[in-house]
Amino acid sequence: CPDGRQSPAAAALQRGVCRTLRAYGHSVVTELTLSGGRRADVVGLSPSGDIWIVEIKSCLADYQADGKWEEYHDHCDRLYFAVAPDFPHEIIPDHAGLILADRFGAEIMREPGEIRLTASRRKAMTLCFARAAALRLQRAIDPFCGE
Amino acid sequence: CPDGRQSPAAAALQRGVCRTLRAYGHSVVTELTLSGGRRADVVGLSPSGDIWIVEIKSCLADYQADGKWEEYHDHCDRLYFAVAPDFPHEIIPDHAGLILADRFGAEIMREPGEIRLTASRRKAMTLCFARAAALRLQRAIDPFCGE
Repeated sequence: CPDGRQSPAAAALQRGVCRTLRAYGHSVVTELTLSGGRRADVVGLSPSGDIWIVEIKSCLADYQADGKWEEYHDHCDRLYFAVAPDFPHEIIPDHAGLILADRFGAEIMREPGEIRLTASRRKAMTLCFARAAALRLQRAIDPFCGE
Repeated sequence: CPDGRQSPAAAALQRGVCRTLRAYGHSVVTELTLSGGRRADVVGLSPSGDIWIVEIKSCLADYQADGKWEEYHDHCDRLYFAVAPDFPHEIIPDHAGLILADRFGAEIMREPGEIRLTASRRKAMTLCFARAAALRLQRAIDPFCGE
């Protein structure tokens, strides 16, 4: 963003989103690199295996710079955008979900259409999510565990 | 164990096992509660989705107290026991894998027979692993993230 605060602002929204997804029963992983190379800001995995992706947009320029977000549909059952309460959220397409967030929590304002993953894509995404979470957790517990 | 050092000894072996599984490319989760209520000491998830369980036995009494370890076969493709180098490892059945470990690493001495999980059990185990890892990781990153 023009004022240079993009990264801390995005981190604050991300934390609030993750807390709220946890309250919904989802486990979450942030900054998950997907097959194809795109990175999802937040991925939520429900107790039944449903997969949500939440893209954090800290400002209008951040949103407008992302021309290919439709590709996230290939990796989740539901796609949301999370923005701060003062974001001009009318510009976000109706078929994407809308979450208003701050650093302490978030609220789902609009549910998106659900496009269910195929079994093979769900399997691949769950494995990708599982391995990222466990590798990071081991690193947090044992910093000298290796590459 | 009689000398009361069971828990630190088991923790040391567990760390060594986890480091070595990581070197093999597995992501790991420790102390994973399985469907049915048993808890696996170490679960490894390979890049292709194979699931290994490693049971840590810090002393002979610890091994002998576990009468139902065959049940772990329902939750993994391969089952190993990990013990310290001075453990009388002849008593571990041939069809289970054998790992010698210390706090710094481990070595697989014998591969077990592989009994492949069914697709539905693999799906359930991968989901269980993924959620445990991500919920613990979030707690490590954001201690106030909620229950």
